[in-house]
Amino acid sequence: MYPRQQAVTRLKQLTQLIRNYSSARLCENKENLILDIQKQQEVFPLVWLRDNCKCTSCFHEHSTSRIIKWINFDTSPKVSTIEITNDNNLVLQWHDKHISKFSIDWLKERSFREDSQQKYLQENYRPARIPWSQETFDAARKVYEYEDIMKNDHALYNWLVDFARYGMVFTRNAPNDNHAAAKVANRIAFIRKTHYVEEFEVRHTPGTSNVAYLSGSLQLHTDLPYYEYVPGAIILHCLVQTDGEGGDSLLSDGLYHAEKLRQENKEAFDLLSSVEVNWLDIGSEHGDKYHTIFRCPVIRLDLQGNIDKIHYSVPQRDSHFTVDVKHVKPWYEALKLFVNSITHGTSKLKLQPGELLAVDNVRLLHGRTSYQDSDKTERYLKGVYIDWDELFSKMRVLKSQK
Amino acid sequence: MYPRQQAVTRLKQLTQLIRNYSSARLCENKENLILDIQKQQEVFPLVWLRDNCKCTSCFHEHSTSRIIKWINFDTSPKVSTIEITNDNNLVLQWHDKHISKFSIDWLKERSFREDSQQKYLQENYRPARIPWSQETFDAARKVYEYEDIMKNDHALYNWLVDFARYGMVFTRNAPNDNHAAAKVANRIAFIRKTHYVEEFEVRHTPGTSNVAYLSGSLQLHTDLPYYEYVPGAIILHCLVQTDGEGGDSLLSDGLYHAEKLRQENKEAFDLLSSVEVNWLDIGSEHGDKYHTIFRCPVIRLDLQGNIDKIHYSVPQRDSHFTVDVKHVKPWYEALKLFVNSITHGTSKLKLQPGELLAVDNVRLLHGRTSYQDSDKTERYLKGVYIDWDELFSKMRVLKSQK
Repeated sequence: MYPRQQAVTRLKQLTQLIRNYSSARLCENKENLILDIQKQQEVFPLVWLRDNCKCTSCFHEHSTSRIIKWINFDTSPKVSTIEITNDNNLVLQWHDKHISKFSIDWLKERSFREDSQQKYLQENYRPARIPWSQETFDAARKVYEYEDIMKNDHALYNWLVDFARYGMVFTRNAPNDNHAAAKVANRIAFIRKTHYVEEFEVRHTPGTSNVAYLSGSLQLHTDLPYYEYVPGAIILHCLVQTDGEGGDSLLSDGLYHAEKLRQENKEAFDLLSSVEVNWLDIGSEHGDKYHTIFRCPVIRLDLQGNIDKIHYSVPQRDSHFTVDVKHVKPWYEALKLFVNSITHGTSKLKLQPGELLAVDNVRLLHGRTSYQDSDKTERYLKGVYIDWDELFSKMRVLKSQK
Repeated sequence: MYPRQQAVTRLKQLTQLIRNYSSARLCENKENLILDIQKQQEVFPLVWLRDNCKCTSCFHEHSTSRIIKWINFDTSPKVSTIEITNDNNLVLQWHDKHISKFSIDWLKERSFREDSQQKYLQENYRPARIPWSQETFDAARKVYEYEDIMKNDHALYNWLVDFARYGMVFTRNAPNDNHAAAKVANRIAFIRKTHYVEEFEVRHTPGTSNVAYLSGSLQLHTDLPYYEYVPGAIILHCLVQTDGEGGDSLLSDGLYHAEKLRQENKEAFDLLSSVEVNWLDIGSEHGDKYHTIFRCPVIRLDLQGNIDKIHYSVPQRDSHFTVDVKHVKPWYEALKLFVNSITHGTSKLKLQPGELLAVDNVRLLHGRTSYQDSDKTERYLKGVYIDWDELFSKMRVLKSQK
């Protein structure tokens, strides 16, 4: 080897060595381990390290399960020795002689720094939602081919990510098959059951127990708000569209309009996110009676105060309103502001036969303009529900296969 | 008619008249209607009255649905005339000539007084939960006959109410039928689907992807905490019990112990009810992969700060812990307090073949002592999930039939 080549090789080795160089020590209070990885300081609490020991008596690899008997777990474990091995593992020996070994890469992925944590969550938990308005609807409207998402994992992954981001996703060229929507749900996971039939038909049905099955206009709403476990998503398949006026689908992003309300009228927002409404459905389906009630605000917040879910449907808001009488009028006024906002911000489109519309039912509001069936065409949509637990699970499975 | 009889009849009529006597007027700000019903003053906001008009253009009787077009709804409606009719109806004419009619009884049921509202909720929404400890376990343990709950609506109603109250209910003399648990779920509504099979078998299965399917001891846990829509309830049917030592079921009331923690150590309680844990399950079932994550605290509170749900399982608590590093050790210490409490407060029982145990999976923690299958007996339980939306719905349906 020429001297110059030797020097280059040596330099590469050194760079590699420096890049991998890690050092570990205890912090002053002996409760945290400080790890310097590639000039980045990471802090790992000893109790967390002990709890996440990956040895075979602490962790069952095949079921990826912690098997530590937690009733005997010591929340103040102490280390005797700390070592970083040449193959980049942190090895801890604890006072009770137990030995735990962690790869530095594994630890880095579990960094307690906030930026790392946020990055981890966005990439592995749920994609960030992107609110849209009437003005940005077209850009938010992503369209896929039915055959693609049914056969191509990469296409389905993108479909799922777009669905999570925008709360809606469109699919075209579905076959003229009564079960096309169900097949999408089953490709992802399985249909979410409710007290209605699994594959529901949306068409004009006189004498129905649900106003969706009439041909009048349908005000913006979310489906089944009276379920605590409100169906996460709707997949609607248009089989026949009316050839006359109307029958348009209406969509409005509850996330966008709730955030807008928070900015413009905090008091109204606070009322809508705190006053609990009794959502109610009474009826029967195929002879089975139901009487479903769930109490929650129109705008449900998560622990951080982010908008988690929207529950809203005029027909299913019960006349029993369990709130201090002094909040009643202000609450109605707040609701009116929200309804004005979602309604004036509605986007309209007419689904064509072969089109599928997936709607995030805990975020978007949907509705329909009225229509008249003719001798030639009877508007006919078929729909199924699927929950976000399953949608996100499939997204993660497909991501890990990429 | 004798004078005395006449007097009695007249007195009865008068009493009836007084009992029914109601008067109505507007309050000063003209926003509320004040109704004096049987010496009780009730206040009804005009906006609420207008919103709940029961005329055929505002309400679709057959689907029990409000059909007011809410985008045109006036949140400051004004009345022109107020009348109470002889047949006990309140009739309002609004400024726009619209007429609304409400029966006084209907209004009374919708009283805005807090005591009436609380009574309504307890009787119609969800029964009050009764926490139990090791000491009161025996009293909380209600036992039903399988045939009774399957055939007798009244028995099933009581079974459901006891289940809601205590978070557990026992059923004996079930047939030696693989589908006995499923039949109970289907008698109530339907089985809750998850990424596991609908009717799951709990027996020793080497090479499993779930530690529940080994024969070792199972620490107290709730099932599937990694589901946002965590299965509300488990119905477990014991088909074969081990004839040796162990195989006992362990039960502990998370509601009781979480409340106890709140009383004894508010700081620990606050940590457990605010720090979000990543609950995780990765694996495959019948070839379908899943990668389910849900983030939530061990103790989930509702909007009033009441304990809503418990999520807890050692094996499925992910090593990714997305929390400020300074909260880590205090959180572990808080968790240890809770685990000590639920564990030392555990009640133990050995299910016998033919026994069914229903467990509220968002409240109780359950576990199992280890056992050894013998040549003669291989412990075998069959289980299904069902959600509280369906359990409560059935309860209300049966109540209205009583």
